Amino acid sequence: MAARAVSVLITGANRGLGLEMVKQMVEASRPVGKLFACCREPDGPRAEALQTLAKKHPDVIVVVRLDATDLCSIQLCAKQVGSVVGTGGLNLLINNAGMLVKGTLQETTTEDMQNTFNTNVVGPMNIIKEFLPHLRAAAKASGMPGMSSSKAAVVSMASFLGSMANVKESYVILPVVSYRVSKAGLHMLTLCAAEELKTDEILFSLIYPGWVRTEMGGDEGEIDAPDSVKGMLSVMASLTEKQNGAFLSYQGSTLPW
Amino acid sequence: MAARAVSVLITGANRGLGLEMVKQMVEASRPVGKLFACCREPDGPRAEALQTLAKKHPDVIVVVRLDATDLCSIQLCAKQVGSVVGTGGLNLLINNAGMLVKGTLQETTTEDMQNTFNTNVVGPMNIIKEFLPHLRAAAKASGMPGMSSSKAAVVSMASFLGSMANVKESYVILPVVSYRVSKAGLHMLTLCAAEELKTDEILFSLIYPGWVRTEMGGDEGEIDAPDSVKGMLSVMASLTEKQNGAFLSYQGSTLPW
Ligand SMILES: NC(=O)c1ccc[n+]([C@@H]2O[C@H](COP(=O)([O-])OP(=O)(O)OC[C@H]3O[C@@H](n4cnc5c(N)ncnc54)[C@H](OP(=O)(O)O)[C@@H]3O)[C@@H](O)[C@H]2O)c1
Ligand SMILES: NC(=O)c1ccc[n+]([C@@H]2O[C@H](COP(=O)([O-])OP(=O)(O)OC[C@H]3O[C@@H](n4cnc5c(N)ncnc54)[C@H](OP(=O)(O)O)[C@@H]3O)[C@@H](O)[C@H]2O)c1
Repeated sequence: MAARAVSVLITGANRGLGLEMVKQMVEASRPVGKLFACCREPDGPRAEALQTLAKKHPDVIVVVRLDATDLCSIQLCAKQVGSVVGTGGLNLLINNAGMLVKGTLQETTTEDMQNTFNTNVVGPMNIIKEFLPHLRAAAKASGMPGMSSSKAAVVSMASFLGSMANVKESYVILPVVSYRVSKAGLHMLTLCAAEELKTDEILFSLIYPGWVRTEMGGDEGEIDAPDSVKGMLSVMASLTEKQNGAFLSYQGSTLPW
Repeated sequence: MAARAVSVLITGANRGLGLEMVKQMVEASRPVGKLFACCREPDGPRAEALQTLAKKHPDVIVVVRLDATDLCSIQLCAKQVGSVVGTGGLNLLINNAGMLVKGTLQETTTEDMQNTFNTNVVGPMNIIKEFLPHLRAAAKASGMPGMSSSKAAVVSMASFLGSMANVKESYVILPVVSYRVSKAGLHMLTLCAAEELKTDEILFSLIYPGWVRTEMGGDEGEIDAPDSVKGMLSVMASLTEKQNGAFLSYQGSTLPW
């Protein structure tokens, strides 16, 4: 991490991996400057743990409303973030919000496909587009050469279930067709962004958190959120232009498409 | 091809690659039994060439209305096909209908993403679901072991632009973000179908037609529709259970995800 305190935004920060990232980031030995913790209902019961944490770190955590499927909320959030970070920009944007609907192909409906796609792919696309001015500002303000997550970066939560190479071995256990399709789409979106914005020196990477015991991952998951997030934060800190467009596990290994 | 005349359905059969497939299939030395040529507006000006062809082969070609984004039209089409093929079922379903919107990530809108996804991914999913009884019937009726396109198969028109491995080299020339995301999604959907329905002995493969000079491919395309279709039909005829879930070019080579 750079000497300057960085600004970070996390979507879906009220529970699961998002909340754990907020926790570990504010408690880190070199904490972040500003941490925009976004969630759908900042004043609702599902955001209580996040609000409690925010009260303990009032100078760092800013809780902001953001619904990935509501462009207007993304635009308002980007405006609010801009008014806080100014010309320093936003250094790291973490597309963490996501949803999963269970179902084989035969069980999956048009609505399952559309809802999952809107949340997991169209949401991240609109978020990238709306926060681009702040990411560009951060890249310019940094003064550092190359790419890094303390300069200007977007990390999106990938899934091994979105890997084509993985379908044969995992389909019987976890069909989740709409989720797989959406994550494959998110992977493609991220690769496109990595190519399109490399001249702006904004880094785009995909990180797979592992199979984590959260509401989404379920009890059968293989690891707990603290271990996953510890790994992911260390991977994020190590990102350079070599990982632009990379698909990495929380342990840093490169995964197949 | 088997001794028995097979039944085939092609979506988007009124122009481009779809129309060329209809042409070559009815003119083949071993023509198909029934060819359901689907299009959005059978009586509209865009279907004139198809209707002319259908009049020349009234015993083989059946023109049926099907809009990939309209579930009701898919269900009605499946009913009509069922009443013609009966217990013999449908041997080969070709998901050819597709659309492309140009645009970089920064130019792509929510609507571009949703329209392209609905046509190129949700459509094929609903088509597979609704025609499944007829594909199952064909697999049962065939009496042949293993898998083949003359027994029971779904071939979907893939794109090299939907290949993650291809983004770096082709993005500057052809950004088309919504299309790339949709084709990556279609590839994943096809892999899921291949796994889910292998016990039914229904084959699922992806074929990339090459960069073809059609309305979609544009004048800069590398090959003409007749050459692309000639290659694809020969690849389809050669499919076995080894190609279940495969991503092949019109020349038969395996492409990277
Ligand atoms: N857990 C795993 O094993 C695993 C594996 C691979 C990838 N991932 C990915 O990691 C990310 C986080 O997963 P998780 O396990 O922490 O899931 P989780 O416990 O289910 O939490 C999902 C989070 O996303 C939020 N969210 C859902 N839809 C949203 C929307 N439209 N707008 C804004 N926020 C929305 C939820 O907010 P609400 O409280 O308002 O619903 C919640 O904060 C997801 O992208 C997931 O796909 C997880
Ligand atoms: N050409 C290439 O270089 C290339 C490369 C890779 C993959 N492909 C794929 O190959 C397939 C055929 O491409 P093409 O080059 O023949 O394209 P094309 O000339 O643009 O023809 C597209 C066809 O799809 C139909 N269609 C579009 N939306 C539809 C919907 N909602 N419901 C039903 N039909 C719909 C069109 O019907 P209308 O006349 O009603 O619009 C037309 O028949 C597509 O899936 C495409 O993605 C093409």
